[in-house]
Amino acid sequence: MSANLGNASIIDCRVMDIRFPFPVLGPGSDASNAHTTYSNPYVVVRDSDGMEGIGIGFTLGKGNEHVCSAVQELFPLIQGCRLAEVFFDFRHFWRRLANPPQSRWLGPYCGSHYMAAGALANAVFDLAAKRAGVPLWQLLAALSPEETVRLIDFRYVSHLLDEAEAQSMVAGLVDTRPQREKRLREHGMACYFTTWIGTEPASLVQQVADVIATKGIKHFKIKVGLDVQSDAIRLAALRGEFGDTIDLYVDANQVWSPHQAVEWIGQLASFDIRWIEEPTAPDSIDGHRFIRERLQQLGIDVVTGENCQNSHVAAQFIAAGAVDRFQIDACRVLGPAENILIMLIAKKYGVPICPHAGGSGLDELVPHLQAWNHIVLDAGSDKTITEHVALCSRHFEHPSKVRMGRLQLPEAPGYLSGLKPEAIQEHRFPDGDAWSG
Amino acid sequence: MSANLGNASIIDCRVMDIRFPFPVLGPGSDASNAHTTYSNPYVVVRDSDGMEGIGIGFTLGKGNEHVCSAVQELFPLIQGCRLAEVFFDFRHFWRRLANPPQSRWLGPYCGSHYMAAGALANAVFDLAAKRAGVPLWQLLAALSPEETVRLIDFRYVSHLLDEAEAQSMVAGLVDTRPQREKRLREHGMACYFTTWIGTEPASLVQQVADVIATKGIKHFKIKVGLDVQSDAIRLAALRGEFGDTIDLYVDANQVWSPHQAVEWIGQLASFDIRWIEEPTAPDSIDGHRFIRERLQQLGIDVVTGENCQNSHVAAQFIAAGAVDRFQIDACRVLGPAENILIMLIAKKYGVPICPHAGGSGLDELVPHLQAWNHIVLDAGSDKTITEHVALCSRHFEHPSKVRMGRLQLPEAPGYLSGLKPEAIQEHRFPDGDAWSG
Repeated sequence: MSANLGNASIIDCRVMDIRFPFPVLGPGSDASNAHTTYSNPYVVVRDSDGMEGIGIGFTLGKGNEHVCSAVQELFPLIQGCRLAEVFFDFRHFWRRLANPPQSRWLGPYCGSHYMAAGALANAVFDLAAKRAGVPLWQLLAALSPEETVRLIDFRYVSHLLDEAEAQSMVAGLVDTRPQREKRLREHGMACYFTTWIGTEPASLVQQVADVIATKGIKHFKIKVGLDVQSDAIRLAALRGEFGDTIDLYVDANQVWSPHQAVEWIGQLASFDIRWIEEPTAPDSIDGHRFIRERLQQLGIDVVTGENCQNSHVAAQFIAAGAVDRFQIDACRVLGPAENILIMLIAKKYGVPICPHAGGSGLDELVPHLQAWNHIVLDAGSDKTITEHVALCSRHFEHPSKVRMGRLQLPEAPGYLSGLKPEAIQEHRFPDGDAWSG
Repeated sequence: MSANLGNASIIDCRVMDIRFPFPVLGPGSDASNAHTTYSNPYVVVRDSDGMEGIGIGFTLGKGNEHVCSAVQELFPLIQGCRLAEVFFDFRHFWRRLANPPQSRWLGPYCGSHYMAAGALANAVFDLAAKRAGVPLWQLLAALSPEETVRLIDFRYVSHLLDEAEAQSMVAGLVDTRPQREKRLREHGMACYFTTWIGTEPASLVQQVADVIATKGIKHFKIKVGLDVQSDAIRLAALRGEFGDTIDLYVDANQVWSPHQAVEWIGQLASFDIRWIEEPTAPDSIDGHRFIRERLQQLGIDVVTGENCQNSHVAAQFIAAGAVDRFQIDACRVLGPAENILIMLIAKKYGVPICPHAGGSGLDELVPHLQAWNHIVLDAGSDKTITEHVALCSRHFEHPSKVRMGRLQLPEAPGYLSGLKPEAIQEHRFPDGDAWSG
């Protein structure tokens, strides 16, 4: 099955600091973040044939420069290596990028250096898919079981899922890949839309009506956690207008203690909520398990993951029964390979994957990961749903697409986080027009 | 009991980037880090009376500048506030510093911004102790139970230990504080010395003999994990020379999978090892529990903590029975207050505290924390022991002291991480004599 990635070596790397300014309590606002500036460390690696791969990180603004400078620090760890070697023996480079000499102390396996390693990995995988002439999901879904597990460093999860078991899980589903790919091409993937905490009830109702009309989406996430009365008012407004024609999810962005989460959600349960997202600290496995045990009787799922630092922490959430679904993030971990590991573990333990998006470029990346999950792992269920907000999508060359409420398979070659030239011109920090004007 | 910290406000902050160069495989070398550059983000806060508080972070070199710049970004979160308000209502500032707008995404609760918050907290507590005219341990050990719990944000641990229970634990031991302080003044605290992976067997034996002769220390930690034969040779050399007159600990600095840790330690168990430190990922609670369950029959403790990002992750290690002892770090978490929370949880679950030191300035800070643990929580046991290497101590104004194998109580006012002026001159990066010469 192996794709031919040629003999070119990775020789060069440029990094730009891209930031999209928003108003206070505007897009991206939630109980933890009143004012966000969606930002991308924007990485362009070049090979010895002059082909370029683009990879992004994602942050909320301040500190984006740390990730950018960390990318420059890490690039020598892959510089001069053949693209095919890096891609087909990614487990080796995973361990190398995850443990940069000296600066590993600043994590380890989290923080700005780890995100920088993820942005570099994203760029390498984009270059590989462009070399292969296919969208990334297709390159990854064409790998053999042996090639798939060679992407992965199993060191810190092997007591939960080892290489042999992972390979055998993948191998058992190879023959049926084509029919699942066909189904995705025809029907797309389930998705939901997210609204922000700063949106007043009347505007919220209008926004939801617009999204239903223009995109056909019927699943909506509401930010909660600042004030339970205000949360109830907004949920009541939506149920009043749309009845049970829409599904509702809520997201507290980590503001509660476990006890407080249980009590607060108890007060909102009558609005028929499908999940509570990030009820408490994103690295508190036992806090989430505490909440999940108490919400199970209400039929409300507990979900988290967009702030989960790495695959071995994700594995603990999944294996410990701390979450009902897990939310992978395309820019927090070590690229597609580490997300594949998380999806393998989720498959083993029967936990549906619901990728985080909304942030600049995330909407463009996650359809590749979820498509792999569907095609290679047959991991779809009623609870497998992907976030889609497309807030910044107009700035990207290949914006993610929704048709009749379903997320479409990306079609162009690559991992597709390339920005339009004019978007770079405008949003480069601090000298772009949006910042210096 | 309350100390008078005056009415001054915190008005100014300077940060210096201090780095101590070492050779490859020299001091600080271990299985994960062949070449370290012990470094401190060096923070000086000044109040409206012109008094200064010094706080350090600690890194292994590269990326130290990220912590320095993050300190400058975070300082406005406490700028203009009264010192007494910040200190006596620290829980409020803890939550503020732990959640910097936008850049919290780069953690959260870990990474360079979190370390920067810790360095700032260390500076504030140093200033408070200098204001009170006592060493920090003494200021903290004079707080009432109410004042003690007001230092702490219990949000993410309250399902394991809440404020009321913590306050009552502290209150129950108030009357007996003076006798425990007297005992510490007379006998000091247990400590151990650490050697580096680059040290050859003959030099290792000589080094250990020197430390026994000059400091009276009889507890030694050996770095392992690169090659099991080499580990065995070094342990055999020490047992051959010193028999059972010394205690031995080993430290793998995270290089193993859980299975590999069990197998490797099985091969070294005949050397009568007291603990295995950092056998696997520092945020793998279930990985450590897996190892601990299998090593219990050998009588070898499993310990970790110096790379544990925050108190709610530490709480999970402690409450889940994943470790036999926990190693707090003075510079990784949000200052003395967050370490007090970890020590409270460890007390509740009966897990001894063994602070990490060795790095520049850490030896000077941790005696204050361990002294508080002994005096306020009566948390001493045979297994309560503090690391002491003093590799960089000669550069500090008040180096930590060991007499007859016992760590002494610090005596000067403050948290005592101030460097001598000539040490700053020499090690300031990149313009100090050690770097530009």
